[in-house]
Amino acid sequence: MPQRDDIVVMKFGGTSVAGPQQIKRAARRIVTAREAGCRVVAVLSARGKSTDELVATAYEISDKPDAREMDMLLSTGERISCALASMAINDMGHKAVSLTGSQAGIVTDSSHTKARIVDVRADRIKETLSLEQIVLVAGFQGVSTDSRDVTTLGRGGSDTTAVALAAALGASVCEIYTDVTGVFSADPRIVPDARKLPVVSYEEMLEMSASGAKVLQLRAVEYARNHAVPIHCRSSFEDLPGTLVLPESETMERPIVTAVTHSDDESRVTVVGVRDEPGIAGLIFGALAEANVNVDVIIQNEPVADDALADLSFTVERGDLPTATEVIDSLGDISNAVRTDERIGKVSIVGAGMRSHPGVAAKVFEVLGEGKINIEMISTSPIKISCVIPADDVPRAVRSIHAAFELGENAIVPEDPTGEHRPTVSG
Amino acid sequence: MPQRDDIVVMKFGGTSVAGPQQIKRAARRIVTAREAGCRVVAVLSARGKSTDELVATAYEISDKPDAREMDMLLSTGERISCALASMAINDMGHKAVSLTGSQAGIVTDSSHTKARIVDVRADRIKETLSLEQIVLVAGFQGVSTDSRDVTTLGRGGSDTTAVALAAALGASVCEIYTDVTGVFSADPRIVPDARKLPVVSYEEMLEMSASGAKVLQLRAVEYARNHAVPIHCRSSFEDLPGTLVLPESETMERPIVTAVTHSDDESRVTVVGVRDEPGIAGLIFGALAEANVNVDVIIQNEPVADDALADLSFTVERGDLPTATEVIDSLGDISNAVRTDERIGKVSIVGAGMRSHPGVAAKVFEVLGEGKINIEMISTSPIKISCVIPADDVPRAVRSIHAAFELGENAIVPEDPTGEHRPTVSG
Repeated sequence: MPQRDDIVVMKFGGTSVAGPQQIKRAARRIVTAREAGCRVVAVLSARGKSTDELVATAYEISDKPDAREMDMLLSTGERISCALASMAINDMGHKAVSLTGSQAGIVTDSSHTKARIVDVRADRIKETLSLEQIVLVAGFQGVSTDSRDVTTLGRGGSDTTAVALAAALGASVCEIYTDVTGVFSADPRIVPDARKLPVVSYEEMLEMSASGAKVLQLRAVEYARNHAVPIHCRSSFEDLPGTLVLPESETMERPIVTAVTHSDDESRVTVVGVRDEPGIAGLIFGALAEANVNVDVIIQNEPVADDALADLSFTVERGDLPTATEVIDSLGDISNAVRTDERIGKVSIVGAGMRSHPGVAAKVFEVLGEGKINIEMISTSPIKISCVIPADDVPRAVRSIHAAFELGENAIVPEDPTGEHRPTVSG
Repeated sequence: MPQRDDIVVMKFGGTSVAGPQQIKRAARRIVTAREAGCRVVAVLSARGKSTDELVATAYEISDKPDAREMDMLLSTGERISCALASMAINDMGHKAVSLTGSQAGIVTDSSHTKARIVDVRADRIKETLSLEQIVLVAGFQGVSTDSRDVTTLGRGGSDTTAVALAAALGASVCEIYTDVTGVFSADPRIVPDARKLPVVSYEEMLEMSASGAKVLQLRAVEYARNHAVPIHCRSSFEDLPGTLVLPESETMERPIVTAVTHSDDESRVTVVGVRDEPGIAGLIFGALAEANVNVDVIIQNEPVADDALADLSFTVERGDLPTATEVIDSLGDISNAVRTDERIGKVSIVGAGMRSHPGVAAKVFEVLGEGKINIEMISTSPIKISCVIPADDVPRAVRSIHAAFELGENAIVPEDPTGEHRPTVSG
């Protein structure tokens, strides 16, 4: 628990500030921390679906909205949340000041819509805290060093804002408030007996975020690990401890498998008949990185015939598929054909204990095989195994693996297909 | 008409950017001016009712929203319009860059929600124009000198932004695009045969804006007069000349009465039994000015008895009534009672020719008297006569006066009570 005079960064996601009632509830949380003696910096996301609505409006205007202007557009959502929360806090007898990303000193590069934080100049925040005031910071945004334009950090970037501020301010904890009560052993909407994890390591959380858990944004976890910022994922709707994300040495338990994660919003690109010569893969993935396309799983088949042509497959977020195919096309005559599979799923298991326990992969393949689920691609890390499978098989795969590794709160529970009495997982 | 290489400032109001179709239409207008060789700076308002919606949300959160936070909140609307219009222009093959008030160099005092422009530092705009780019500026907002906080200029402040930029840039014209085709001899919704005025002088426009014409904001007209910025009020929906606002020497015709204006959103405050001693009125109106309450008509009855107590009445915008009564109450024991009349109307006639033609006032009083409309307060200037009357009598008063002075396009026209085929007047 944070102590008196500690700086605490509290981040509230979109569902936690969706409407006036939620904003007042978040304000009450912030005031409670302040009244406990903490110096509070709160980072807010845009209200509910407001960012989605702005994006939809942009696409009504333009098929390919200018990235700089997209940032000017989208950065307004978090400012609205902050101004409203500040009004609520001021009404509760505390002085709050809302700051834009720029005013808060979040300095980024110029990569519009996917900017990276290059510096945090927190002088104005420190000044405001020293006046005994509460600081509200518009998440997800910053200002570019060179052109002083508004930039955004990409979807879910508010987590990164919060962690970056916690690091810069030496906060004792970065609390991430969402509509879920913590990090679960699987998505409770799919696995009703999924268990809330009291503690996970940065490494596990990184793998989970990378493989579909939407509670925390990957970059935020990376930033927290690099700066040793303790994260506390908790519910904005109930006052219970959630999940702590900490260095591995401090985690309490080290199960072989911690969680099953999944995603069903990926697409696969297969470049057929790539010339098998040095530099081609570098050319392709360099160009994709240049275009800010995050590539997830990659496999390349060794050429079997004399013509030295290989097939190269990789997965990307579905939203990046048009850009990815454009990029490949722009590289000219490097292959015979490009095939895409728009709708691909992935199931992953993550656990720090896997490092020292062989046989986990074999068991996963066995479970999927028993379910007649076809594994199309495999990707592993020391603490994770991911299998690309047909998107429609994802829920069944998650349930089977979760049960096989006995990750649930109890072995046999009546299924709750509505999911109504379970928290939902979202970012 | 603006010439090649001229700088033109084009301002589009809320209805002109209400939705994607309107935004594209405004973008097309802007591009047409650019393609004619002009260097274009466009100032945009927030979309349609979006500012009203933000205000309503603020009041769902707080009964008295913090003014600084209100500015942070409301300034987002114009940024959204600009970003969207910029996307549309970029799609049309021109390069456009949207700027916030702060980025555009609109420097104001710190009077939140009613800030005044103290400086325009247009370097970034000039730089962008010199790159052959179109500049879009979020209207209605600026940045405060001392605290570098976002400020807003008050409702309708985008007109002022446009005129201030036109002055700072030496623009050949400031075009104000709205959903009306120009300035009319009366509100066409009330007077079907109201006539579009080709030219009015700054002085007439000032009196008209002050007395209820919503086409142009008063402060914008004042700013234009002080800096000799020619204004062209025109329709964003049709490509016809509108109304030019120019110095008096340049105006073409000088009728005795140019227009009848009205308002029905005023309230009256009567301070009963004020001590009739020097300094009391100064105290009252000084305190009101301090609270940013704009007082319109003032009358004071001379005390008739020996107790030296007078009654002081004044009118304010209805929205300012609560603040006005609070201010009076805060002055302590200066009167016997304060009475308020929330709903008061006003009808005014404006005309530069009135200066040299006595008898206009008499004719107005006569017309109102014939209609049995009770005049409750009177206020005059060399080119204007205003009568405070019951709010419900306003439409009838406007029609009678407009007819009596023969201001219409033709003496007898069939009335169009729906007003559907007439433009509407709004700001």
